[in-house]
Amino acid sequence: MKSLSSQPYKGTRDFYPEDKRVQNYIFSIWKSVSESFGYEEYGAPVLEPLELYAAKSGNELVNEQTYTFTDRGGRTVAVRPEMTPSICRMVAAKRQELAYPARLYSIANFMRYERPQRGREREFWQLNVDIFGDDSVAAEAEIIMLSDKIMKKFGAKPEDYTIKINNRKLVNFMMAQYLELDASSSQLMAKLFDRRNKISEDDFIDQAKEIFGDKAEAGISKIKTLLSAKTMADLPGEILTSSAIHEIQQLFTILEKAGITSLTFDITLMRGLDYYTGMVFEVFDNHPDNNRALFGGGRYDGLVGLFGVEPVSAVGVAPGGTTMENFLQTHNLLPKLQSSTDVYVVTLGDVSREALKLASEMRDAGINTELNLSEKKFDKQLKTALKKGIPFILFIGEDEVKSGIYTIKNIAKSEEYKVNFTELTKLIKE
Amino acid sequence: MKSLSSQPYKGTRDFYPEDKRVQNYIFSIWKSVSESFGYEEYGAPVLEPLELYAAKSGNELVNEQTYTFTDRGGRTVAVRPEMTPSICRMVAAKRQELAYPARLYSIANFMRYERPQRGREREFWQLNVDIFGDDSVAAEAEIIMLSDKIMKKFGAKPEDYTIKINNRKLVNFMMAQYLELDASSSQLMAKLFDRRNKISEDDFIDQAKEIFGDKAEAGISKIKTLLSAKTMADLPGEILTSSAIHEIQQLFTILEKAGITSLTFDITLMRGLDYYTGMVFEVFDNHPDNNRALFGGGRYDGLVGLFGVEPVSAVGVAPGGTTMENFLQTHNLLPKLQSSTDVYVVTLGDVSREALKLASEMRDAGINTELNLSEKKFDKQLKTALKKGIPFILFIGEDEVKSGIYTIKNIAKSEEYKVNFTELTKLIKE
Repeated sequence: MKSLSSQPYKGTRDFYPEDKRVQNYIFSIWKSVSESFGYEEYGAPVLEPLELYAAKSGNELVNEQTYTFTDRGGRTVAVRPEMTPSICRMVAAKRQELAYPARLYSIANFMRYERPQRGREREFWQLNVDIFGDDSVAAEAEIIMLSDKIMKKFGAKPEDYTIKINNRKLVNFMMAQYLELDASSSQLMAKLFDRRNKISEDDFIDQAKEIFGDKAEAGISKIKTLLSAKTMADLPGEILTSSAIHEIQQLFTILEKAGITSLTFDITLMRGLDYYTGMVFEVFDNHPDNNRALFGGGRYDGLVGLFGVEPVSAVGVAPGGTTMENFLQTHNLLPKLQSSTDVYVVTLGDVSREALKLASEMRDAGINTELNLSEKKFDKQLKTALKKGIPFILFIGEDEVKSGIYTIKNIAKSEEYKVNFTELTKLIKE
Repeated sequence: MKSLSSQPYKGTRDFYPEDKRVQNYIFSIWKSVSESFGYEEYGAPVLEPLELYAAKSGNELVNEQTYTFTDRGGRTVAVRPEMTPSICRMVAAKRQELAYPARLYSIANFMRYERPQRGREREFWQLNVDIFGDDSVAAEAEIIMLSDKIMKKFGAKPEDYTIKINNRKLVNFMMAQYLELDASSSQLMAKLFDRRNKISEDDFIDQAKEIFGDKAEAGISKIKTLLSAKTMADLPGEILTSSAIHEIQQLFTILEKAGITSLTFDITLMRGLDYYTGMVFEVFDNHPDNNRALFGGGRYDGLVGLFGVEPVSAVGVAPGGTTMENFLQTHNLLPKLQSSTDVYVVTLGDVSREALKLASEMRDAGINTELNLSEKKFDKQLKTALKKGIPFILFIGEDEVKSGIYTIKNIAKSEEYKVNFTELTKLIKE
């Protein structure tokens, strides 16, 4: 028989304990920051009916990137490519029962059929944090404050990242009133803005000309005015009459008062997904080696209503695991993470019964204890413990059984102690 | 446009915060017990190549229950229906680098196309705990001790459950030597044994007769002898010559010394999966309302070798989330679980800036704080906080801002306190 391949499916990743520790570290920061703001955890299924995404997620995601198939009962389902439609479905299903604003978060995996590349895998993990039923600018500010807090909890300094802010209502106003584009040209222009950092300025201008058609000259001049605006005040007067401008100013005021300094307004920020209706934002890595969007979010007030209930307003953000890990590596912010096992018990001679008893008592005392069960020699056991990176090694042989005094080694400090059970547990817990 | 359905996909479940708390409680016990025995966490992809399961998981699982489809690149993949093949693949891929015995665990979701029923959903969560590279009876004992510890950590008493133990080598010996069945009849008989508790004794005997064919009379008499055996000593002498008997005795000796009292030997215990090669066991609920197998495991030494590397022996166990939850409900063992949010801040009048500052300081002090951002009236805010089941409510208005003394209410105790910031954090942390 031909051997099976031991490789994971393309674009997915195996998390061995040393990788899982990093992922767990990232998850733990996500969890603690989300909960510190009063968000509660939920979970949703990994498979959903395909129509959930067809409604609003955007054509590219549904037609090209979704893992979709027909189940044995003839239902068309998708492996979830994102969380937003699922949580909106859940909120709609309990529209009447939930207390508002509902603050909800989840940490889950998703699949998208994409060409795997750095920071982009077919299976990826995301935190999703959303507030439902609060249409205030303060709710938008809270989601951005929470995002900022995540960055800071990971040890990032304000100069390490930039939070770019824009508003879809302003974008719509700019496209229709200022650039005088119709609906389909507006969409093309939005997609071009989205690619702005990925193409040359000449290419950008050429493609913009095509969208403007016979109004290219006036159009390009306006685009250049937009791109040269460094702050909101630099925007052309016509745009400043948009009602969205007031919202953006309010948002900046709250965030600045809250001490957030990494902010910038960026009228070219679009965010890919079709469902945003107001504020959009993106956290951008300032490091030259990783100059890219880390994650983002925004307001999407139209989704819950698609399920046939009274609409519920919503603001959310969704950082990804791999992107976060790349950020931490680039900025040298990953702490040294240890094994979850505290101590490895090396046995000398036939003491299996006593060793089992000792290990059991140590476990009951809250110490994660790996016990040698084999008849391997001393040095082989030691090698196993060292290879696993376990911080303490305890030795038990006939002498230790008789005296109740154990030899324990702190690997990092290269120190040995002779201790009784009480001292032992104290030593390891420190 | 027709509204979207707000129902989850058939056989899957939405976990709202109150459900997720229960799940997180179960996961936390699984995690702490696994880690206390020195097992380290890993993660594997949700999609795997289908051939991973075709090899050994058993025909029913692959042909009838797996969610399988062809991806956009023509690869046949499956949403994982179980973890064992994935972790064996991972061990094979790092056959040389890993330290043995490797002790590994994961908590993950799986999908099987089944008729949804109590304790059986299409999407389900499982703990998988496995030890690789230790072929001793002691390793088997450790997996059973860990399973027993999980039950006890959940608050189960020894009389609440039974751990049934058998050995596939003994089963094979019994089928071939004692019952004198050929390979295909042995398989049929094993499946019949598996269904023993689900059918009447008459049906069982009838079906056994069919398998024996013209040797039915002698066969049925032997089967009756087997079924009446209450302990190993009651088994017919012919079976007691099997080499597996010694292994089983050794296993019982270790477990009894370790103080495990819920043990029983059951020669009719088969376990469904095809890949077991030695010891098999099952934890069974003794409660009359939930008289069923909760979870099980066993030794499967043949799987890692399928990936074209030197074989690695393995023993594992896999408790499921829903089954565990049903057990806890049946035995009234579910603790009252609170919101992860510690305090809800009710604002009175225009104090949004000061309230934001206070909430931020509380969060920095480690208190999970939900802050009202709306202009809703006092009683509406209070109602929200109560509906969410948050244990403390703090009130901040102009007086509180001036004095620095806040009113805080402990909901469970129905008590109110007037405290400064330091007292506040102390009070909530207690």
